[in-house]
Parts: sequence; C-alpha cells; structure tokens
Amino acid sequence: MLGASGYAGRELCELVARHPSLELTFAAANSRAGERVRVAGRELSMVLADDARLDQTDLVFSALPHGASAAWVARAHGAGAKVVDLSADLRPGNGAEQTAPSYSSVPYGLTELMRSTLLGAEVVANPGCYPTAVLVALAPLLVRGLVVPGATINVSAASGVTGAGNAPKTELLFGEVTGDFRAYAVGNQHRHLNEMQSIVRTLGGDNDILFTPHLLPVARGILATITVPVTETVASPLQLWREMYRDEPFIEVSDVMPSLRDVAHRNVVQVSAMHAANVRQPTMIVIAAIDNLMKGAAGQAVQNANVLFGFPETAGLPR
Amino acid sequence: MLGASGYAGRELCELVARHPSLELTFAAANSRAGERVRVAGRELSMVLADDARLDQTDLVFSALPHGASAAWVARAHGAGAKVVDLSADLRPGNGAEQTAPSYSSVPYGLTELMRSTLLGAEVVANPGCYPTAVLVALAPLLVRGLVVPGATINVSAASGVTGAGNAPKTELLFGEVTGDFRAYAVGNQHRHLNEMQSIVRTLGGDNDILFTPHLLPVARGILATITVPVTETVASPLQLWREMYRDEPFIEVSDVMPSLRDVAHRNVVQVSAMHAANVRQPTMIVIAAIDNLMKGAAGQAVQNANVLFGFPETAGLPR
Amino acid sequence: MLGASGYAGRELCELVARHPSLELTFAAANSRAGERVRVAGRELSMVLADDARLDQTDLVFSALPHGASAAWVARAHGAGAKVVDLSADLRPGNGAEQTAPSYSSVPYGLTELMRSTLLGAEVVANPGCYPTAVLVALAPLLVRGLVVPGATINVSAASGVTGAGNAPKTELLFGEVTGDFRAYAVGNQHRHLNEMQSIVRTLGGDNDILFTPHLLPVARGILATITVPVTETVASPLQLWREMYRDEPFIEVSDVMPSLRDVAHRNVVQVSAMHAANVRQPTMIVIAAIDNLMKGAAGQAVQNANVLFGFPETAGLPR
Amino acid sequence: MLGASGYAGRELCELVARHPSLELTFAAANSRAGERVRVAGRELSMVLADDARLDQTDLVFSALPHGASAAWVARAHGAGAKVVDLSADLRPGNGAEQTAPSYSSVPYGLTELMRSTLLGAEVVANPGCYPTAVLVALAPLLVRGLVVPGATINVSAASGVTGAGNAPKTELLFGEVTGDFRAYAVGNQHRHLNEMQSIVRTLGGDNDILFTPHLLPVARGILATITVPVTETVASPLQLWREMYRDEPFIEVSDVMPSLRDVAHRNVVQVSAMHAANVRQPTMIVIAAIDNLMKGAAGQAVQNANVLFGFPETAGLPR
Repeated sequence: MLGASGYAGRELCELVARHPSLELTFAAANSRAGERVRVAGRELSMVLADDARLDQTDLVFSALPHGASAAWVARAHGAGAKVVDLSADLRPGNGAEQTAPSYSSVPYGLTELMRSTLLGAEVVANPGCYPTAVLVALAPLLVRGLVVPGATINVSAASGVTGAGNAPKTELLFGEVTGDFRAYAVGNQHRHLNEMQSIVRTLGGDNDILFTPHLLPVARGILATITVPVTETVASPLQLWREMYRDEPFIEVSDVMPSLRDVAHRNVVQVSAMHAANVRQPTMIVIAAIDNLMKGAAGQAVQNANVLFGFPETAGLPR
Repeated sequence: MLGASGYAGRELCELVARHPSLELTFAAANSRAGERVRVAGRELSMVLADDARLDQTDLVFSALPHGASAAWVARAHGAGAKVVDLSADLRPGNGAEQTAPSYSSVPYGLTELMRSTLLGAEVVANPGCYPTAVLVALAPLLVRGLVVPGATINVSAASGVTGAGNAPKTELLFGEVTGDFRAYAVGNQHRHLNEMQSIVRTLGGDNDILFTPHLLPVARGILATITVPVTETVASPLQLWREMYRDEPFIEVSDVMPSLRDVAHRNVVQVSAMHAANVRQPTMIVIAAIDNLMKGAAGQAVQNANVLFGFPETAGLPR
Repeated sequence: MLGASGYAGRELCELVARHPSLELTFAAANSRAGERVRVAGRELSMVLADDARLDQTDLVFSALPHGASAAWVARAHGAGAKVVDLSADLRPGNGAEQTAPSYSSVPYGLTELMRSTLLGAEVVANPGCYPTAVLVALAPLLVRGLVVPGATINVSAASGVTGAGNAPKTELLFGEVTGDFRAYAVGNQHRHLNEMQSIVRTLGGDNDILFTPHLLPVARGILATITVPVTETVASPLQLWREMYRDEPFIEVSDVMPSLRDVAHRNVVQVSAMHAANVRQPTMIVIAAIDNLMKGAAGQAVQNANVLFGFPETAGLPR
Repeated sequence: MLGASGYAGRELCELVARHPSLELTFAAANSRAGERVRVAGRELSMVLADDARLDQTDLVFSALPHGASAAWVARAHGAGAKVVDLSADLRPGNGAEQTAPSYSSVPYGLTELMRSTLLGAEVVANPGCYPTAVLVALAPLLVRGLVVPGATINVSAASGVTGAGNAPKTELLFGEVTGDFRAYAVGNQHRHLNEMQSIVRTLGGDNDILFTPHLLPVARGILATITVPVTETVASPLQLWREMYRDEPFIEVSDVMPSLRDVAHRNVVQVSAMHAANVRQPTMIVIAAIDNLMKGAAGQAVQNANVLFGFPETAGLPR
C-alpha cells in the first residue's frame, strides 16, 4: 500500500487488513513515516515508500497523489507486482500517453462496465469517484443508443469533503464548511471531465458532458443528478438498469431515491431513474449515489484486485 | 402577523419588531396560542388567529400554510389591511383563479423583477424560495432573448431543512438528515414548478424548466445551479447581470461563486454566471444563492411591505 | 426481536441477521407492522408483536419502550425463550420490584463487570447507554477503594441524538439541533441516575453521582467526562484500567483521549484517565466514549446473548 | 484593527464598521496584506501591521496571537491610542509581569465584573472566551461567600471550532470534526486556567478550578457546565444571579437552560442555575452559554471600547 495516509489510503488499509485472501505487508506514506497507526484493530508503523518491499509482494495499491503515482506504478510493476493505481495518472483522458507511455492503455477498472478488459491485466487504473457514479448511471442509456445524438448530458453532483483529501486547507476547516454549500470547478472545468467524456465515447455516446460539482457539509458520499435528453419515452425506465445490472452484486437499482446515508461505508452504487414530467423534450433523470471512499476509491480498488487474482469479486467488501 | 410559529413566521416577527417604521401588533399561531415567545429581545404572547385585531392594523403578513392562507388574506383585506401573503395560494400557476378568484391576479412580489406592478397594490403574493433564486438568476438572459427558443433550462437546486418547515417529521430529525443528501420531487414534480414556469413566460421565455431539488444537511439557504442553452457566446457574460441589477441593493453579482454562508441571515441574492467550456452547444451556467428564510421568505415580505407603504426599500432589512 | 423500529432495534436487527450463530426469525414493531425494511441487505416484513412466534424462538430481544417492555419479557420468558431486555424496566434502581416483581433481581448485563452473574441466566437487563460508559470508567477506582469515601463523583456527559429515539419531536429536528449544544435533565434528575448509583454501591462505592447530560449535534456516540476525588496520587494511573480490563476484548484503555469517531459503529468502550494538575484535592479525570447504539445498546445486547448461549463473546460484534 | 484575519478579527471588523461612533480606519493582517475583504458590505484592503497608521487613530484593537500582541499594544499605546488587547498577553495569570512589565496590571475587561477599574483606563486586557462564561456564572456565588471554602469547582465546557482559530490544521478539517466530540487539555492544563483562577481569587474565592474543555462540531459558541459545592441550600437560587445582574443589558438570567443557538451572533451571556438533587453535599449546577466570537471576544472588545470612550455600553452591539 503506497500513499496510506490519505482518506482513501486509510480506508484501503482497513479493507486489505480484513480481506480474507489479502495480507497488508506494508503501509507507506512519506509524510508520516515512522508514525504508528491503527489498522483493523492493530497497530502498524508507516514506512517510507523507498523502504517498501515492492519485490516481495504480489499486489501493490497506489493511492499516491496524481502526478506522483505513475512512476511508482512502473517501479512496483517492474518489481513483479500487479498494481491497482487509484490516482488519475493512468486513466483515459488524463494524458498518460505523454506522462506514462508504457501504461497509456491500461484497463479502466470500473469493473461492472469493463470486466472483460480486466481479466489477465497486470495494471489497472482505478476510476475517479465522480466518474464511477456518473458512468454507472449513464451506461444503460448509452449502450442502447437512447441518448439523443449530440445532446448535452447535464450532471450536477455533490461530494462530501473527504473527496478533497486530508491535507490541511483553510477552506476545508469545519468552521468554513459547516452550514455551507457551493459549486466548484464551475464552467465544466473539473479534472474528471475528460475521464467521463472518454468512457462515454467508449460506451457509444457522442454526447458532451456538462459537469458541475458541489462541496457538501458531510464527511463522505457523492450524489450525481443527471438529466439526459432521450430519443423516446420508455414504459418502465428502471427496467433498463435492472436488466443491465441484474447480476451485479454492487449495483442497487431502486425506485427509492438514492441517498448518501444508504451507501455510506458500502461498496455499492445506488441508482434510480425516471422520465421528467412537464417538458417537451423527452428527458430522463438519473440519480446515483456512492460512498466516495468505498465504491469511489478503496472498495473499487479491492474489487479490481479480486478480479486480477481470481478471488470472488465480493471478497472483503462491505455491502 | 398570521402564522407566526413556523420558521418564516418567526423570522418575520423579528424583522417587523426591529423595523424602523413597523410595529408588531400581534403574532397569531393557533397551534401555539397562549405561549410566550421571545421576539427582538422581548416576550410576546401568541394569540389565536381569530383573536387577531385585523381591523386595527394597516398591514397583515400571512405565513399560514398553503391552502389555508387565501381565506385569511380575504378576511384581512376585507378588514381594511394591506396584505403580503407568504403562502403559495395567490402565486401565478397555483390555481388561485379557482380557489381565490378575487385574488387571482395579485402582483407577484419578486420586487426586483416586478416593481412597477407593486406600486399601489393592496395584496401581494410573496414568491417561493426556489423561484426567487431561479428567476433572479434567469431574468437577464430571458429579457434579452438569449435563451435558445424551446430549449429546456436545467435547474438543480438544494435547500436547507428549514425550507421544509418545523412540523415534526421523522425524516427531518437530526439523526436522519446529518451526513445525508438526496433529491426529492424528482421527475419535475415540485409544487414550485408552475410558479417558475409562469414567470419565465412573463419574462419572455418559451422554455421548459426541468427542476430537481435536493435536501441539504444545513439549517438555511438555497443554492440553484442552472444550465441554459444560449444563442450566442457573450464576451463578458457577468456584465448582463451587472447591468440589469446595477441599482438593486439586494442583488450581488460577483465572479466569486455564490455560497450559502455568504448569504445567511441576509436579504440578498448572490448570483454569478459563466459560459461552459468543452461543450458544442453554447451554454451558460448561472448560480444563485439566497437565505430561504430571508430573501426567500420573510425578508422579501418586508421588502414588499416597504414598497406598498412607500418606505425606503431597504428599511429594516439586513444586508 | 420486539421493538424493531427504533434506532437500537434497527441496529440490533442488523447485528442478529449477520451473527454467525443467530438467525433473525421476526422483527416486531406495532407502529410499522406490515412495512418492509432492509436488514443486512435483505427485505423483511415487520410484524405485530402479538403475531411474533415467541414460542418458536430460543432468544428474544426486547427493545420496547420503558414501561411496556417488562410485560413482554414475562410473556417471552413464559413461552420458553431466554430474554435480553434493552429497556430500563428490569434494571436496578428502576422499581422493578414494584412493576415486575418476578424479575426484580435479574442480572445486570454490563458483561465486563458482571460476567459471573450472567452465566446460567435466562433473563438479562441490558444496561443503559450512559451507565455503560460511566461504570466501565469508574469500576477500577471503586473496586480498589481509591475514591474518597462520601465524595461526590461529577459526571458531565454528552450524547448524540439517536439516544433520544426516532419519534418525531420538534426539538430533535435537524434545524433545531445543528449548531446547538445544551444540557438537559439538569439538577441530577436523569432517569439513568438510579441505575448508575445502584451499581456504584454494588462495586463498593458509597459516593453520590452528580450527573449532567448534554445533547450533541451528532448522530451517535456518548462521551462521559468524570472527575473523581481520590485518596492518593497514583504513579501510573492508566495502569489501574489496563490491569482490570487486560483480557477484555471490548475495552480499549489508551493514553489517547477517547473520541466519538473512534468508537462509532464499534462495540467498545474507550477509556483514558489521568490525575488533575493544579488542584489541592487529589482528583482523577476519567473519560470514556462509546457508541450509544452499539456498546450502549444493541452490541451489548448481542454480547449478553453470546454469554447466555455460550457463544464466543465476540461473535458477530464489530470491533 | 491589528490581527484582522482570524475569526475574532473578522468579527471585530464587522462590528467596528457598523458601530455608530467608530470608524474602521485600517485592518492589518500580515499574512493577508494586500488582499481585499468584504466588511459590512464594502470592500477593504488588508494592510501590513507596519503600515498601519497607529498615530492617527484614537483606538486600536489587537487580535494578534498570544505572545506577539504585547509588543504591538505598547507600540500603539506609545503612539497615543487607547488599546483593547484581545490576546492573553496582558491578562492576569499569564505572566505579563515578565513579558510586558509596563502593562502587568492593566484592567481585566470583563465589564460586568470589573466596570469600575475600566473607567479612565488606556489599555484593557480583553478576557478569554472560557473565562468569560465561567466567571460570569460563578461571580454571584463567590461574592456572597456561598462556595464551600477550599472546595474544588468543577467546570466541564465545550467550544465550537472557531475557538481554535482559522489556521489550517488537519484535526480541524470538517472531515475530522463532524460527528466527533472529544476533550482536550485534559488534566487541568488549559492555558485559560490561570486567568480563571486569578479572577476567582479577586472575587473572594479560595477555590481550585478543575477545568475540562471539549471540542464541539459546531462553528461557534461555548457552553460551560459548572458544579459548585455550596455552604447552604438557597430557596430561590436563580435570584442570586438576577439580583447581581439586574441592570446588565448583556446578561440573561433564565430558568430555561442556556444553549448555543440562543446566544449565537449576540453579545450576551445566558446563565441558569439550580441545586442538585440526590446528593448529600449541597451543590449548585450553574450553566452559562456565550458566543465565543461575540461576548467571548469581539463583542466584549467593543463593549470595553464603549466604556473607554464613554459611549453607551450597548452601542453597536447585537443583543
């Protein structure tokens, strides 16, 4: 485990330590090397990344910061380990072809949509939190060609503060965030946009995503509210999601509206959908909720590891 | 003051009691009649609505529930008082022509957009909280004809819990709301939709509003994030809002993104706007924030009263 | 499971459903009979208490309200089941000798302090949440006779709102609780006082407890801050707790100050202690934290069930 | 205004800018010099402390950090200004006799208790937030000699996070504080202890204070819960506070329990008191609430300025 001191890294350490087929061999975080932390009820010493025994482990998770991670992925992979990279470095649309050319086409680990490309892989790019919620929500419409060609898909999403990490910043202090709500990266400028846009193309859509994220006064969770111009009005819209995700243990399709509380600490996507009333352009509203640290990061990473090693996909993951 | 026990009613009592030209003559709330409450540092006894001296007051505010308010508006007006009605009963699109035909065309008290219709009025329909934020945000685009004809305007909005009132409901308990975020009235079914839609028409737009509200774990405030397909890309978009609202003391146009904290306890609308990058269809993103109990209810009501009686429009209102 | 609709009842249903040796045979809640709820990922129908098959189950948990529970304990016990009663009805100091004389001396299920009395029992009174934190914190001082005889023990405690249940009350609405903090039952009048006082006597103390609880704007957790006049200054005070609780899997003694976040969703008591500086009267400050719904209610109940049936005491309990 | 960038400094800028008899001539904060901030609805440029025109102002507030403030008090005073110092540097018990000997006996600006010493003063030490709540609560018992001589007075207090300032620290991030509650400075080691202890002596008490503060997940407010062994049981205990504070506009004595919400944004102390039941040693429980940024800092500072300049004591202060 590289990058063990952030919120996602800590969550991942817990999951690995409690996983029936994995063992946590080291937790590296340069900024906190030497400190003792509690993981799964036991004390553990953080080590320097340079001191991590990459050659003696079969699997390395990297939750290092964007930009710093790609080089460590190469180092761990070179030492013989399979790697799940939680950073954005190797994800589509993030310029991996420039910064990490050898890894410019690693599979994108949104397991439910990309399972076949993961089999046999040695390195996986773990998806971003917002793209996970948005792409699981959109896929059934995209693969069936129900989205109006060329139309803009509007995504208004909100994230808990752990999505912004645990580096100390004034604007993330409790005294600043409590009672507040605001948009950020306004103007379709969020760094997850390319990643979403790229997978929309992969799924057959030619649509533009217009994405506006907001910061919520909650610790964890992402809710994405998506409006999609559609080519026809479907009789039982939720059926589209039910069919596509029928056998997926981590996707919950429901006519109850998704909410952050219902997904907290669970490796699931909750999704619901319906047609909009009172508009001339047939439009669907799709809503998805995830825990940004679980299905949006650490849980998804373990799910990918389970696929890479042939473990049951649900092993060690809280539903 | 009729309906003094709800959140808006209490806020309004405070404003009236501290207003330089108004005096709080009674606070009526049937459910709490006889109770003593603190208003502006003094104790006051709640009375039954039937015991309110409607004939001895020049101005009556009604914050009674939707459905119950129209009859009391008629009663107070018949007794000789001017009336500001905070309920939805007399607002456009709410069926006043059926339920309260004599008051089916009272002016809509969104002062900044409707000031001329308010002069000389005796009864005013105070706008809903969501419509206030949305309409102030949209008006500059609508009146200049910049919205693509027939296009859907997408509104994703979020409100603090006081917007749902203070009647005890399990789903509004602290233990349920904290850490949560969810959409409600999904599918374009919110009761404020007709009101917004109606004023969009008045302002010259033929567009459909697609409105999805969410419940925030904060006490007060509304943030509306609006995406609008526009006919052209404007060089300095914020200029449109600056020009229209140049002389408005309660509208703050800024390139800083609006936030709930910056408007809390203030009778203002904060608004910002920019073009979306990375989309083919030229689109503007407009964001507005208000305090739902101030500019979204009680403050707006006092602003309307100031207009009705010729007081300075800013009298007694916190900015 | 009787009384399955409250916060503790719901938590207990989850624990039972996931327990390796227990099976949830029914969840009864008269107010919600017929409703379907999700427990451990599966749907379940609530039943009327009268329809519960008490005679076909080996174990009944009652989380019914105080006053209503004792009669159902008798009914379930009469039908042949062992019973863990989460209400206050059968706890010491609550007048069980009057209201439920046959059960006036059932063992008090604070397992760590009363394990020997639980062996072979058929009915157990599950402790209150505040007493659990306070008594675990105090026991090492009391059993060693270190508390100044006759001295008042001061307990200032704070609880998350789930401690007050999920019946809808205005004062528990999010809009009322957020940003607030206040004491209640001030003047040493809380209904848990007798229970605490009674066990203090059992543990050998003749001291009065002065208990002031507060309501916190958090969902779950209790922190008790206790000041105890002591007869001597001990060199390594924490050693007293470490020794007494050495083999206890659910008690964490630490020199890090206990906090609500560290115990959330876990069946543990965190406790720390130190001598006060700058006072003439030697005094210890003991601080304990629990999750009021886990170690303070549902988790403790399962722990007791584990003892009654000879399961490993940690079975099915999150640490 | 020196030290204008912290929470108290910002609050004070607002109060000064809106004060009927004061004018904000500069706002200095070295870390943010050159930045523009909004104060009372207008934009203002922060300046370097070295650029502040100390010689052209009649009054200087210093909200500089402890340790750094005393030297600036001397500089401003030397330039001819009266000074209200919000830091701890000149308060009793903080070693001013060593670090700032010329100012080792400036009056302690807890106006209600020390008004006579403030008349004619040129420099005032503004009290700490915790001491303000605790001392106003205790004074009626101390001055009447009702506290048991030599007895320990137990103070359990809790503060909102703005009390810890707005410098970015991981442990103050929203993601860390929300849902949490914990004690700090445990063991009677808080830096406000000497200040409280010193004034207890001044008010005639020989008692030790045992003070345990806690960190609350709220933005602002302090609640102090105090237990005091008393020499006798008084028939109408609240009468003691009512009599002492009869003419004080900023002290609210009530049999309703004080709460943070009721004092937020107001320059008041709410206090209540009663005898404890069920204890042998007669004991009073006194509870006080303040807004730590108003009566606990900025509001108190303006109140002191009003006294220094002979303005009405309530001028410019929200009640």
